[in-house]
Amino acid sequence: MIRNAIFAEKPEDLELKERLKAAQAKLFAQQMLLKDHKVPVFVLMEGWGTAGKGSLIGNIIQNIDPRFFKVFSMDSPSREEKRKPFLSRYFEKIPEAGKFVFLDSGWMDEVTSARINGKMSDKLYDQRIASVKRFERQLTDNGYLVLKFFCHVSQKEQKKRIDTLLASKDTRWRVSKEDAWQNKHYDKCMEVFEKYLEDTNTSSAPWYMIDAKSRKWAELQILEIITQGIEVALQNQSLAVPILQNVFPMEKMPLLSEISLEGCEMTEEAYKAELKVLQSRLGELHNRLYRKKVPVVIAYEGWDAAGKGGNIKRITGALDPRGYEVHPIASPEPHEKSRHYLWRFWTRLPKTGHIAIFDRTWYGRVMVERLEGFCSENDWRRAYNEINEFEKELSDWGAVIIKFWVQIDKDTQLARFTDRQNTPEKQWKITDEDWRNREKWDQYEVAVNDMIQKTSTTYAPWHILESVDKKYARIKALKIVIEELEKVLGEKK
Amino acid sequence: MIRNAIFAEKPEDLELKERLKAAQAKLFAQQMLLKDHKVPVFVLMEGWGTAGKGSLIGNIIQNIDPRFFKVFSMDSPSREEKRKPFLSRYFEKIPEAGKFVFLDSGWMDEVTSARINGKMSDKLYDQRIASVKRFERQLTDNGYLVLKFFCHVSQKEQKKRIDTLLASKDTRWRVSKEDAWQNKHYDKCMEVFEKYLEDTNTSSAPWYMIDAKSRKWAELQILEIITQGIEVALQNQSLAVPILQNVFPMEKMPLLSEISLEGCEMTEEAYKAELKVLQSRLGELHNRLYRKKVPVVIAYEGWDAAGKGGNIKRITGALDPRGYEVHPIASPEPHEKSRHYLWRFWTRLPKTGHIAIFDRTWYGRVMVERLEGFCSENDWRRAYNEINEFEKELSDWGAVIIKFWVQIDKDTQLARFTDRQNTPEKQWKITDEDWRNREKWDQYEVAVNDMIQKTSTTYAPWHILESVDKKYARIKALKIVIEELEKVLGEKK
Repeated sequence: MIRNAIFAEKPEDLELKERLKAAQAKLFAQQMLLKDHKVPVFVLMEGWGTAGKGSLIGNIIQNIDPRFFKVFSMDSPSREEKRKPFLSRYFEKIPEAGKFVFLDSGWMDEVTSARINGKMSDKLYDQRIASVKRFERQLTDNGYLVLKFFCHVSQKEQKKRIDTLLASKDTRWRVSKEDAWQNKHYDKCMEVFEKYLEDTNTSSAPWYMIDAKSRKWAELQILEIITQGIEVALQNQSLAVPILQNVFPMEKMPLLSEISLEGCEMTEEAYKAELKVLQSRLGELHNRLYRKKVPVVIAYEGWDAAGKGGNIKRITGALDPRGYEVHPIASPEPHEKSRHYLWRFWTRLPKTGHIAIFDRTWYGRVMVERLEGFCSENDWRRAYNEINEFEKELSDWGAVIIKFWVQIDKDTQLARFTDRQNTPEKQWKITDEDWRNREKWDQYEVAVNDMIQKTSTTYAPWHILESVDKKYARIKALKIVIEELEKVLGEKK
Repeated sequence: MIRNAIFAEKPEDLELKERLKAAQAKLFAQQMLLKDHKVPVFVLMEGWGTAGKGSLIGNIIQNIDPRFFKVFSMDSPSREEKRKPFLSRYFEKIPEAGKFVFLDSGWMDEVTSARINGKMSDKLYDQRIASVKRFERQLTDNGYLVLKFFCHVSQKEQKKRIDTLLASKDTRWRVSKEDAWQNKHYDKCMEVFEKYLEDTNTSSAPWYMIDAKSRKWAELQILEIITQGIEVALQNQSLAVPILQNVFPMEKMPLLSEISLEGCEMTEEAYKAELKVLQSRLGELHNRLYRKKVPVVIAYEGWDAAGKGGNIKRITGALDPRGYEVHPIASPEPHEKSRHYLWRFWTRLPKTGHIAIFDRTWYGRVMVERLEGFCSENDWRRAYNEINEFEKELSDWGAVIIKFWVQIDKDTQLARFTDRQNTPEKQWKITDEDWRNREKWDQYEVAVNDMIQKTSTTYAPWHILESVDKKYARIKALKIVIEELEKVLGEKK
C-alpha cells in the first residue's frame, strides 16, 4: 500500500493556504456537531520515525476545543501494561461520545515493532491481526469513527531529517535509536508495514496514506480526511450493522427449564466440613496462580436474591486480599455510558496473577439493556458475538474465565423477597425495582436462555449454580473454581 | 471457519415448524418493503456437493413473488465466458433494485474449484481474492444486500447421501464426478474452503455457515438470516460510506487550463497522407490483436461538439467490423438505472480479441451525475476509486485501456454550436441541453480536472486530444491507439 499509494497532488502554496484555512474552519464547526450527535472520533497516527506525527497532531488540535480531545503518546508497553491483554491499553483510551482521541502511534506500531525485531512469531502475528480487526470493527459497529493515518517519508527524506537533527546538540536527543535503525533497514521495515497495512485495511476502518514530506501539506491531507470522515459519520448515525455469525467453538448447554433444582442441597455439617477443605485448597492454588502469573476472571450473573453475594464471599474468603478484587457492577456512570459498553470491563481486568470477580457483568447488554430497551435490537443481537470476541481476547491472553449463572425458581425468589421485606435488617436489600424485574421473569428467562446458548464458548462456558440451597451452590462454585485452576496450573490432586 | 463454526441448535420439530412459518411470512411481507425501498438482494449459495443448495433455493423462493426474483445455476465458465473478465458473468447477474437474485454456487465455487484442481497459482488466487472483495464491497457500498451462505455437511453425511443416490438407477445421474471426488478428498477441499471463507469474510458481506444436515432446518437458518439481513438493510438505506484512498499507481496529468491548444493543427494534405498510413497500420494490428486475443477498451469523453464522433469514425474506419463495436452511451434506461452504475458497462465489455469503443462512458458518474445531483456526493466521491477498481479488473484480465479526453476551448464550442444552429442539416446535433451544459462550463471544468487527476492510473491513463483542429485530434488518437497496441503486441515498427 505504501509503494502503490499515490498521494494527492500537492497544490500551490496559495491554494494550500486557502484549503488549509477552509478545512480548519470546517473541523472547528464540526466539533459541536459531533458533540450534539455524540459521535466519538478515534484518530490513530502511525508512520515512519521523523515523519512528524507528533507535531501534526499538535497542529490539528489547534482547531478543537481542549474539552473535546485528548492526545496520548504511546510508548512501548510498560511492565505493568504487559500484564494486561494486548488491546487493553488501547481500549482504555477510546474516546467518549462526542470527543476526539488522538494516538501518537498505537496498536500498529506495537505489532510492527515486535515483528521487525523478530520478536513475534507468525502465529502470534496472525492472532494480533485478528484482534486488531475485531477491535476496530467493534468500535465502528458501535458508532465510533476510526481514522487511521500512515505518515510516509522516503528513505532519503528520513535520512535528511535525521542528519539535520543530529547536526545540532539541541536537537540530537530527538533522534531515537529506533529512527536511525529504521532508516538503515528501511526496506525491511517497509515490508512489514506494507503487510500490516494490507492485513488491516477494512472498509469500515480504512488506512489513509499521508505524504508527510511537507508539514503544511500533510496537515491539509489529514484535515481534509478527518472532516470528510466526520461528515460521513454524522450521516450514518445509529446505523444498524450485520449480525455476524458466531465462529467460536461452543459447548452444549441446557435451557433453564431443563435444570433440575431438586436434591441440590446439603446438611449444615457436610457444608462446613467441605467448605473448610475447599477454601484451604483454593488458598493454596491462589498462591501458585500468583507466582505463575495466571490471570483469572470470575463472572457472576443470576436471579435477584439467588445468592450471588454470599457465594462470592465464600470464594474471596479463601483468597489473599493482595491478589483479588471484586467489582460490583451497577448501572453505568455517565462517563461509562458515553463509551463502548465493554469499556468499563476492559478497564477492570485483573493483572496477570490476579483474580477479578464481577458481581454482575458485561452480560447486562443482553439482559437488562435488551429488556429495558437501553440499546437497540441490533445492538444486543450483535453483542453475543462481541462478547465472545471479548472473552476470546482474554482467553488468548491466557486468562481463566469462569462464568456462573446462579439459578433459583420463582417460588424461592418470592420467599426470599418476602423474608427481606419482613426483616428490618434485610430491608435495604429489596427495592421496587426487584419487584418490577420479578414481573418480567418470563422475558428474562428467554434472554438468559439466549445468553447461555450463544455465549457458552469452550474457552468461556457458563456454569450453572443451583442455589435453592445456597450452601450447595457455594460448594459447587468452589469446586468449579478449584477444578479450573488446577487445570491451568497443570495439577490435579 | 467451517471447523469452528457452531451452528445454531436445531429446535424441536414443533418449534422448527412454527419458526419456519414465521420466517416465511416475514420474507413474504418484506418483499414489498424491498420493492418500495429499492433495495436489491444478492444471495450467494455455496457449499459442499450434495448439501442441497438447489433445493434450498427452491424452498426459499416459494415465499417470493416470481416477478421479484431470479435464480441462476452457475456452471463452470463456458468458452464464451472465459473470454470475459472473471467477474463479468457475476456482475451481469446482479439484481435490480427491489429484487432478489439467487446464485446456485458462484464466484466462490469458481475460485475454490480451480484452486482444488491445482489450476490456480498463489498469485492468481490472491488476485481473485482482491477482485472478489472489491466486487462485494462495491455492491454493498452501493446499497446492495449481499448474503453469502456456505451449506455444510460432514464427510460422513456426504458419503451417505452419495451412496443413497448411487443405489438407485433413477438418481444415480445426480451424483457428479466432482461430488464423488470431493468426498474422497474432503480434507483437502476443507482446507481450500476454509482459507477462502476466511479471506473473504468481511463485515459488510460476512459468511454464514449453514448446518445442512436436515433440509427443513437448513431452510429455517437461511430464512432467518435473510429476513434479519433485510431488516438491517432497510434501516441503513442511503447510507454514506467511507471514501477509500486510492492505492493504485497514478500518472501525473496536467489541469485543463495547463493544456495549450495552440499550434495543434495540420494541413488537409498532411492529414490525408498520415490518415491513410495510420489507418492501414491500425488495420494490421487489429488482425494481430484478434489472433492474440487481446481485448481493447477505448473510452471517449470530451466537451459537447469537441469532435468525438468524427474521431471515433477515423478509428473504426480502419477496423474489421467483425472485431469491434461502438457503444454510444446516453442516459441510462430504467433497467440500467435500477442497478449498480457500472452494470451497463460490465455487460458491454468486449470479448478477448475484440475492441469496444465507448462514446461517453462510466465517467458520467463523476461528471453529469455529480453536477446534476443524480447521485449523492458520497456516491460520486466514492466513484473515483470504484472506477479505478473497475479498470484494474480489466487491466488484470489483460485488456488495453485507452481513455481520451477531447479538449476544445469555450470559444471553439460556441462557434461550433452556432454553426450547427445555422446549418439546417446539422440542427439535429444541437439541443437546448447542450446550451444548458455550456452555461455550466466552469463547474464541468472542475469535475473534469478532478476526474483526470484521480483516475489516471498507470494501467489506464487519460490521453488529451487537442481538438480545435479536429484533424490534429484524429491523427493523435490514431497514433496513441497504434502505440498502445504495438506495446501489448510486443512489436514496434
